Order: sequence, then C-alpha cells, then structure tokens
Amino acid sequence: MSLIKIIEIMAILVGAFSGFIEARRKRMDLVGVFTVAFITAFGGGTMRDLLLDKRPLFWVTHQEYAILIFFLALMAAPLIRTLRQVVSERMIVIADAIGLGLFSIAGVASALDAHMPIFIASMMGVITGIFGGVLRDIVCNEVPMVFRDGKPYAICAFIGSWMFLLLKKYGASPDFALWSSAMAITVMRLASWALDLRIMR
Amino acid sequence: MSLIKIIEIMAILVGAFSGFIEARRKRMDLVGVFTVAFITAFGGGTMRDLLLDKRPLFWVTHQEYAILIFFLALMAAPLIRTLRQVVSERMIVIADAIGLGLFSIAGVASALDAHMPIFIASMMGVITGIFGGVLRDIVCNEVPMVFRDGKPYAICAFIGSWMFLLLKKYGASPDFALWSSAMAITVMRLASWALDLRIMR
Amino acid sequence: MSLIKIIEIMAILVGAFSGFIEARRKRMDLVGVFTVAFITAFGGGTMRDLLLDKRPLFWVTHQEYAILIFFLALMAAPLIRTLRQVVSERMIVIADAIGLGLFSIAGVASALDAHMPIFIASMMGVITGIFGGVLRDIVCNEVPMVFRDGKPYAICAFIGSWMFLLLKKYGASPDFALWSSAMAITVMRLASWALDLRIMR
Repeated sequence: MSLIKIIEIMAILVGAFSGFIEARRKRMDLVGVFTVAFITAFGGGTMRDLLLDKRPLFWVTHQEYAILIFFLALMAAPLIRTLRQVVSERMIVIADAIGLGLFSIAGVASALDAHMPIFIASMMGVITGIFGGVLRDIVCNEVPMVFRDGKPYAICAFIGSWMFLLLKKYGASPDFALWSSAMAITVMRLASWALDLRIMR
Repeated sequence: MSLIKIIEIMAILVGAFSGFIEARRKRMDLVGVFTVAFITAFGGGTMRDLLLDKRPLFWVTHQEYAILIFFLALMAAPLIRTLRQVVSERMIVIADAIGLGLFSIAGVASALDAHMPIFIASMMGVITGIFGGVLRDIVCNEVPMVFRDGKPYAICAFIGSWMFLLLKKYGASPDFALWSSAMAITVMRLASWALDLRIMR
Repeated sequence: MSLIKIIEIMAILVGAFSGFIEARRKRMDLVGVFTVAFITAFGGGTMRDLLLDKRPLFWVTHQEYAILIFFLALMAAPLIRTLRQVVSERMIVIADAIGLGLFSIAGVASALDAHMPIFIASMMGVITGIFGGVLRDIVCNEVPMVFRDGKPYAICAFIGSWMFLLLKKYGASPDFALWSSAMAITVMRLASWALDLRIMR
C-alpha cells in the first residue's frame, strides 16, 4: 500500500473519529453515530464536488470507506473508550493536521482540473479541508467550531492553498508543489496549536 | 389511478403533514410552514438525486405535488386541528411506515440504475427514506430525531434495502423484490413501534 | 458600468453585510465572518443552480465578488461600526428590497430557461431571493428568520414572480416583464415594511 493511501485512510479515520465523539456527546444512537461520522469524513469533499459538479463522488467509487465507517460505528462506544486510553490528544491533532493539509491541496488541485479561477480554487481547497467539520456541527445543532474558536485552522488551509497555486504558477514540479504545500499546512497547523495562537476577531 | 400512485401521494402527504406540525410547533408563519412541509416531503429524494446527479428532480417533473402542498399550507392551522380529531396517531404511523418502505426501496432501485456499488445503493435507500425528516429538523434548529431517539427507523430501511439487493442478486423477479422488501420495511417499522423496541446506543 | 451591474453589486454587498452583522453577533472569527457573508450573498442563487444543475455557478465565473467579500471581511469590525454611523436602517432595507426583486426575477427567468414548469419556476424565484438568508441562519444555529417573523418577504418575491410569469405568458416584452416585476417586488416589500404588515399565521 502506498504512503498516500495510508495517509488518506488515516485522515478519513480521524474525521470519522471526531464525528463519533461529537455524536456520542449529543447522545445519538447508532444511526446518528454512523451518519455524523460519515458526514465529518466526507462532507468537505462532497460539498466541493457538488459545487464543481464532479461525479462520481469519492466515497461512491470507494465504497470500502463507507463500509469501514459502518463497522467502526457498530462498536463506537467501546472504540472511543479504548482509543482514549491508547491514543493521546497529540496524536489526534497530528493526524488531523496531516489530513487538513492533504485534503485541502487535493481540493485545490481538483478545482484547477475543473478550470476554476484561482481565488475560487483556493476557496475549494479550504472548503474541502474544513466543511466536513462544519456540516458535522450543523447536524449536531452547534455553531460550527471552525467559525468561532479563533484558532488558525481554515487560515492554514488558505495559506497553504495559495502556496500551492503560486508554486504551480512559477513552474515548480506538480509533485513538489503538492507535497510541500500540504506539508506547510500541516506544519502551520501544528505550530499554531503548539503555540496556542489566535487569529484576530 | 393506480395503487402505487395512491400510496405515493399518501406518503408525500404524511411527510408534508409532519412538516406542518413541526413548523407550527416552532411558531413559523405561512412561508415556514410551506417550506418545512416541502422539505420534509421531498428532501430525501432530492438529496439522493443531488448525490447521484440525477435530473430533473421528482418534484420538478410533478409540479402538482408542490401545488398541493402549497394549498394545504394555506390552511395548515385548521387542517392540523381537524386531522387531529379525525386521524389517530396509529393511522399516521401506518401511513409513514408505508412511505418509508416505498421511498427507501425506490431509492435503492434508483441508485442501482445509476450503477452505484451495492453498499452505496443501500445507503441511498436509507437517505431517501429518512433525509426529509433530517433536513426538517435541521431547518427547525433541532438535532435530527432519527439520529437520537434510538427507535428502529433508519435500521428498518437499511435491512429492507439489503433484502431488496439480495433478492435481486439471487434472481427474484424485479416486481417481487420491490414489493416484498418495501412491505418488509413497513412491517418491521410497525412491529418495532408496536413493541416499543430500542436499538443499542 | 451599467445600471444593472451597479444594482447587482449593491445587492450582493447588502447580503454580505447582513452576513457580517449576524456572524459578529454570534462572536465568530474572521473565517466565520467571511463564510457567513459569502453564504448570505450567494446561497440563494447557488441553491437554485444546484437544483437546476446549472454550472458554472455565478460566483465561480465572477470571482471578483468572492475577492471583494474577502477583503471586506478582513475589515468587518471597523466596517460595521462605520456603516452604522453613515448608513441608516432605511438605506439597508431599500437596498435589500431592490436585491430581493432583482434576484427573485433573475431566478424565475433562469428556471424558465431551464424549461421548468411554471409553479416550480415561481418557487425557484423565491428560493433565489430568500435562501441566502435561510442558509445564513442555519449556519448561525437559528430558526430561519424568514420562516417565522410573519413579515411579507418571501410572499413579495412569490407574487412578483407570478406577475413576471403572467406578463410573459400574455405577451409582454421580456424587458418590460423583468423590470416591472422586479420593481413590483421592491415596492411591495418597502410598502409592507413602511406599514409594518404581518401575514397570517
């Protein structure tokens, strides 16, 4: 299995896991736990593909991810308990930061593929990176966390998306542009987390 | 008028009626009452068709349903009062269970038509059956009922959708697969309601 | 710059500004302020185009509007303070009423272009006119204002949309139909605001 496949699965699992936690906190049943986890993991990419009119959707052609989340949801309660003992908060933040970088840049690249203008492409990157969590919070009847906690999260995705766009414009190799920008998002996110930075209100 | 047409109209009316009740409970005005009823009745199928990229949408080619809900919304207040005297809770639950069965199986069939993989097709069945109510609750600023009350509703749609998929796979006639699975969902739903079953949390 | 372009920009700015105010009231950060303003300004047209399957979306081909909202969001806090001193509530209501008329009729015309039946076309007009605000309120975790305040807003859009449809049916010139209906919506909205009318509940 390639490295990118492993990171992709990790990022989806982190999304699903954050959905599990939020759904359980809202005392949802099995149906809610599965749906919220699914929306958190795939909501960003799905929103982007609806706006760009791309089909088939990622999770449609890769039904193994939906099946995986289904079986994890069946054992969400013991899973959360176990993971809380085994997995530290630091590991979750790291995996989520890797996912944010990867998904955001994949979103920009996909928007460029669809011939979107450059600012819209950067927005699609951010949407892909953050809208899973936004939809999770809307379904859970909360004001989306990413809109109100003042922590640099969408901002990291935005800056990294522009880094990718500029690298491509000035002739960097596609691979270098992709990996360095995704990594920049992850590093910015982790640094701002470690330093507990806030953006202005 | 064919039997299936009558059942279809009944199911849509039940959806609209549940929207009326929820919108009135939230003290919405005429605009809210119509919109919430419309979303409850057609939200599930619309969500499925957006995800599958099918057009035109059902309610677009059958504008008579939108018009019907419009005129019912105009008299929602007296209508709810009258129906509460004439229609028992049992009748609403039965009509809703018939609608759940019919819409879910129609959703699976439509997903198979669009060459979706099998697990995704079963998800599309459940989405068609339940997302009207989910969107209704989101618009009404509630955590969706179907995600938190622990009653078998989505689960019935899920099991029935798989029954349909397996019957088709093992060579049952399309008509038999469709009707027996839809009926199985209705029966499961009514039985779990009569027995007041809960699914695990 | 043509008159219609100026009105269009004004209407989008009014939408964005109402998003700014709501997002600030909810104590959102920069990311929330931009997103909510964007959703309020473009949510109605985007929802219509998703339902009609029209692409590219308006704000995709006109990225200058997204960029404008981005820079306004950067200075939303001082902007709101300044505008509150310079701009009276009356001016906001007038600009918003012009936007409602224009966007609603643009929505009906776009639905007719896509060969929608007549009642659905009138619904698309209303959706284009009001769904920006509906989505803004959902993201801000409120029951949508337009569904519950009992003031004629969607109703004005609905009546004006039918006026447009009837004028076209009975042979009025396209330009006359468009401008007189849009103006009728604006006048109805302003009159009902001045008279503080309520629709029945």
